[in-house]
Amino acid sequence: MIRTEPVRGMKDYVGIEAKEIRFLEDVFRKTVELSNYIEVISPIIEEFSLFAMKGGEELRRTMYTFKDKAERELSLRPEITPSIARVFLDKLQPLPRPIKLYYIGTVYRYDEPQNGRYREFRQAGVEVLGAEGPLVDTLVINDLYTFFNKIGMGNIITIKLNNISIIRRILEDMGINEGEQEHILHLIDKGLFDDAVQEIDRLATSDKKNMETMFEIIKAGTISEVKLKDYISYYKNLSQQFIYLKQVYEMSKNLGIPVKLDMSLVRGLAYYTGIIFEVKTENVQFSIAGGGRYDRLIEIYGGPHTPAVGFAVGIERTLIAGKGYIKISQLPKIIIFNLTSSCLMFSISLAGKLRENGYITEIDTKGGSLGKAIPSYISQGFRLMIIIGEKEVREGNVTVKDLDKKTQVTVAVDKLLDLLKQML
Amino acid sequence: MIRTEPVRGMKDYVGIEAKEIRFLEDVFRKTVELSNYIEVISPIIEEFSLFAMKGGEELRRTMYTFKDKAERELSLRPEITPSIARVFLDKLQPLPRPIKLYYIGTVYRYDEPQNGRYREFRQAGVEVLGAEGPLVDTLVINDLYTFFNKIGMGNIITIKLNNISIIRRILEDMGINEGEQEHILHLIDKGLFDDAVQEIDRLATSDKKNMETMFEIIKAGTISEVKLKDYISYYKNLSQQFIYLKQVYEMSKNLGIPVKLDMSLVRGLAYYTGIIFEVKTENVQFSIAGGGRYDRLIEIYGGPHTPAVGFAVGIERTLIAGKGYIKISQLPKIIIFNLTSSCLMFSISLAGKLRENGYITEIDTKGGSLGKAIPSYISQGFRLMIIIGEKEVREGNVTVKDLDKKTQVTVAVDKLLDLLKQML
Repeated sequence: MIRTEPVRGMKDYVGIEAKEIRFLEDVFRKTVELSNYIEVISPIIEEFSLFAMKGGEELRRTMYTFKDKAERELSLRPEITPSIARVFLDKLQPLPRPIKLYYIGTVYRYDEPQNGRYREFRQAGVEVLGAEGPLVDTLVINDLYTFFNKIGMGNIITIKLNNISIIRRILEDMGINEGEQEHILHLIDKGLFDDAVQEIDRLATSDKKNMETMFEIIKAGTISEVKLKDYISYYKNLSQQFIYLKQVYEMSKNLGIPVKLDMSLVRGLAYYTGIIFEVKTENVQFSIAGGGRYDRLIEIYGGPHTPAVGFAVGIERTLIAGKGYIKISQLPKIIIFNLTSSCLMFSISLAGKLRENGYITEIDTKGGSLGKAIPSYISQGFRLMIIIGEKEVREGNVTVKDLDKKTQVTVAVDKLLDLLKQML
Repeated sequence: MIRTEPVRGMKDYVGIEAKEIRFLEDVFRKTVELSNYIEVISPIIEEFSLFAMKGGEELRRTMYTFKDKAERELSLRPEITPSIARVFLDKLQPLPRPIKLYYIGTVYRYDEPQNGRYREFRQAGVEVLGAEGPLVDTLVINDLYTFFNKIGMGNIITIKLNNISIIRRILEDMGINEGEQEHILHLIDKGLFDDAVQEIDRLATSDKKNMETMFEIIKAGTISEVKLKDYISYYKNLSQQFIYLKQVYEMSKNLGIPVKLDMSLVRGLAYYTGIIFEVKTENVQFSIAGGGRYDRLIEIYGGPHTPAVGFAVGIERTLIAGKGYIKISQLPKIIIFNLTSSCLMFSISLAGKLRENGYITEIDTKGGSLGKAIPSYISQGFRLMIIIGEKEVREGNVTVKDLDKKTQVTVAVDKLLDLLKQML
């Protein structure tokens, strides 16, 4: 016997589980397409170097990498933003700004499998390239919120908001350059503040007087708008960063988006330079979506200065957090049962007609007695049975049995669709 | 600068190209769901051994294989049928027969890239498990045809039909067992008849008198129904196999499916045991879909005897063959232009309302003059511009400009949706 389980850390989805995934993907697609994003489908296999440059420490450590037969060093993408940046550089640079792109696909991380996190999982996200400012960021957050609203989670999410340029600016003032900031941000993100202090001590080339300020701000965590206004007037050299945060916060609030200021929010990915945000729910620990502004990534890849902002939604994690809120509708199913095999062609045509009209229709291929077939199809969740016999075919009639209500009616074939509308 | 092209043999799809792929996937999903197939989403990473057992020579040679950090020997799936068989064995065995499953996903083959064949490409397919007989095969072929019909290719495809058990039976009669047949079928599939003869000479343990018959049949290629009836009466020991083929052919024909008997059809995959079929068009060399009956695969994997039949559609190849026949509709796009930033919140809410009503709506975030904005949005394919100014907001009005017809109207906001219905 072969091993029948999926490879460790991977998961199979069947039936309703698959339907849930496709439902989220579908709503996501419709939401962002209505906001004029266009789709990019890029391969899951990319050169290792694309992710090695600017993915963040943890991402690099957990990548699937391998060599192909031509000794190319390849990776299964651990996220999709770098691929979108690559596609932009490859062929989208001539387009007028802003360029609004979206993607839906699988990503791969060789992590310890845990609740809500598999080694293959799905992300749906957007990237807006070539536009800056608080309005653009707010519109992106608005698109994110619209998606969660449409899937029934509008009332249970909170979007945490911060501006990573506050911390970056303080580190910069201590003489720690952007490249060196990555590891410090990683340590802060993991809550390893002592290690972060040590690292700052090691790297700082100028006055460290603001290090304490930085940790004070971070440790303030969730703050009120009033507190944010205090920061603006108190930390003069950071007022620009704080004002930007305030603008995004206020516009989002005005649009009815459940935003919350959180100064402790530091996202794991190394490329963020401005506004960052994460979607949380109370029922799970992990965040289910996140994003932010990354104005330097395209440059780091060798392209022109291109400010950018985007987000990614974790599809599987959203399904876990949204359990009980995300509703999948199941259409009623019809089974066509033939009393004799001579009616088969008639039944197949009839099935085609019913399917064209949107009814999930199955044709019985097992034969056997009607008495045995009925309970079997009831247990399989069929709502109606259409019984076809020679007499019926000859007279142009069909018999429709309601398997729930145990009633049945015989009608002319050309009246069948009207009858189904009443019965289902 | 990073390398901006995708990895050799891979392809990026943007905008309309991505839309075409999603259109086919979407029609496929709807078609098969209406026929009561349920979806399986399985990981693209599987154990190498799953495909090594029964994939066919060529498939094994062109697989992406690598070891993960725990030294597991893994492959990127070169096709999806083995995964479906694995999922069936893992958790679907208790379900009533037939079990009707479908999948849509990417597969990976390290081939020389050529027209219509990338190293990552998409397959959409179905598998019916636990059902046998010509009717079941015909229904599966009917589902395949319905899909091509719905995407506008019903009139340009031919479905070639054969029964691989004819050749298998002759080989078996020569004492060549199933395991040994694989390589011979592979050689015949490649047209290497001399090599196939040599191999038969090497392996045959009993009388080879039917070898010539076999090649005669294969070389007959496309045959008429009359010829098939001749075969039935002439080759007594193969009549069962020929009759089965005739039944599927006739039922398909009666259903209006463009089937053609082709005795030279031998599909590359090693697991087929009965009816096999391939979808062809005149404008391209390659087949764009194919499938057949594989009654032994589940057993070979260590499961119970489970007759099965299925097919897979090549999405990218179908798009190439269907060029000019597959029509993608593009919805009109609306741009909202703000004369002052004070109207922004009003505009964002309005955009939300329009999107809810199914209009692709963009909000201008660049500002600048209306005179410059108009030609830019025309060139980006926007049909309508809604202009919002302070006066308009105060009076509850908006101005709608038809960018094609160069006309404009001012209406009350609550009459806007009615106006759009007329204009678009």
